[in-house]
Amino acid sequence: MKTYLDCIPCILRQALATARLSTNDEKIQEKILDQVMSFLINSARNNPSGETLTPPHIGRYVYRIIKEITGCEDPYRDVKIKYNQIALNMYSGLKDTVKDSPDPLSTAIRLAIAGNIIDFGASGGQFDLDATLKEVLTREFAVHHYDLFCDSLSKTKTLLYLGDNAGEIVFDKILIEEILKMHKLKVYYAVKSVPVINDVTIEDANEVEMNNVSEVITNGSDAPGTILDLCSREFLKIYNNADMIISKGQGNYETLSEENKKNVFFLLKVKCALIAGHLEVNAGDIILKCGGANQ
Amino acid sequence: MKTYLDCIPCILRQALATARLSTNDEKIQEKILDQVMSFLINSARNNPSGETLTPPHIGRYVYRIIKEITGCEDPYRDVKIKYNQIALNMYSGLKDTVKDSPDPLSTAIRLAIAGNIIDFGASGGQFDLDATLKEVLTREFAVHHYDLFCDSLSKTKTLLYLGDNAGEIVFDKILIEEILKMHKLKVYYAVKSVPVINDVTIEDANEVEMNNVSEVITNGSDAPGTILDLCSREFLKIYNNADMIISKGQGNYETLSEENKKNVFFLLKVKCALIAGHLEVNAGDIILKCGGANQ
Repeated sequence: MKTYLDCIPCILRQALATARLSTNDEKIQEKILDQVMSFLINSARNNPSGETLTPPHIGRYVYRIIKEITGCEDPYRDVKIKYNQIALNMYSGLKDTVKDSPDPLSTAIRLAIAGNIIDFGASGGQFDLDATLKEVLTREFAVHHYDLFCDSLSKTKTLLYLGDNAGEIVFDKILIEEILKMHKLKVYYAVKSVPVINDVTIEDANEVEMNNVSEVITNGSDAPGTILDLCSREFLKIYNNADMIISKGQGNYETLSEENKKNVFFLLKVKCALIAGHLEVNAGDIILKCGGANQ
Repeated sequence: MKTYLDCIPCILRQALATARLSTNDEKIQEKILDQVMSFLINSARNNPSGETLTPPHIGRYVYRIIKEITGCEDPYRDVKIKYNQIALNMYSGLKDTVKDSPDPLSTAIRLAIAGNIIDFGASGGQFDLDATLKEVLTREFAVHHYDLFCDSLSKTKTLLYLGDNAGEIVFDKILIEEILKMHKLKVYYAVKSVPVINDVTIEDANEVEMNNVSEVITNGSDAPGTILDLCSREFLKIYNNADMIISKGQGNYETLSEENKKNVFFLLKVKCALIAGHLEVNAGDIILKCGGANQ
């Protein structure tokens, strides 16, 4: 998905929020905004190669600018630890919810989508996890390729799960556990190689013991999405050979939606009007979409 | 009030909205955002004179950039006509509300504040006039210098009323009519000299026949507020000699709040978190504040 003009103010809002987590010095925060604006004018949309720059392409540069200026490698580290812990404290209750439901797999999918609300990029940290959980358990899907999902799962030997955010990763683990109860398959769980916003890295995977249910791999990149051109060879080998891919959240959708791969399933809660427009749904909607299927 | 870093994304959001009203050409909209960002980097906050640049200082330049690039002098003309008409259609009902209330002046003040929700700058055109009217008639004031207001009014021979937005001007007229029922005084109603956002100009004053209740004057400026340094001599003479000044809305508050003038009364609905912070109130609050009084 391309970067729209509406993304510009949103990128600056996110840059300011991250600048404030990285330094208390208002002069440096101002310098960051200036450099981000300078980047947006000079480079972002005048891409000489003609390649479509998605919001995560831009986000990657913005977070690099902030790191370079402040020296702060992981401004969201505390936020990530906090939300991993909050979600871990919910784990046992969520497991009961799944177990006691008429269709545990479907419920686990809903919970994984609810966890996607824990977002310090698009949502700017303004979310209500409890209310979202309640809502997502009963809300109708705007896109619901559940039959295709189950069918794909039944034929899958190797599943690649593209992680999104800290906190949310606990909900991902519950979905993976539910899948493993029903199917014997190899699961890879991909995290970012370098901290960017509150996206999961190896530290988050360790905190929630994701390696108990999957092989945790890094994608080789520092983009808040999955930009294949920037991913490592090792990751791409797994990506290309996986029978099925579960892609969580907006950043992964923005970077992979144009691939139109039949074996990719996008699980997300729509948090912005532009993605809603791209998916032809409404902001707030929940999505389980097969990458190769029409709506 | 100074321009905060948080204003930057908001200014860009407003610039994009105005760009879209000025032209359908996305390339030109993009050029506008680029030039606004370039202005924000190079000039906006590196003011060589050391003068505090308020958001209306910046807004003035932004709207100049958009006019220069698109040639569109008044992108909000249709919006303004529409909201003047909507408010005029409400006029008779609002007059009844005032007449039937236990304190008609207080009710007219509340209505004038409710009308302040008609805002295509801060609110970006996202507002619900009917809901706001209902709410503002009963909501408690966060700052309520009503006694000072009535006292000042009783001693006033010359009142200057600083207008804000189209549509809202009809609510201003109702308040002026109520004041004139109680006090014999000369009223000047000030409008902007040049279109900027949906701020009132002479055309709007004519559309709602504001000259029936006041002498309509222009302030000599194209800023979406009242920047005294940019106002005409004629306006400043009236401003300096008025016994009392009613200042409507955020733009006028942002530009006049530091004057600390005892005879200025700010009437506004707080539409952004930064103004809320400056006033030590909450976003959404309603304000009747004497410029020279402590809260």
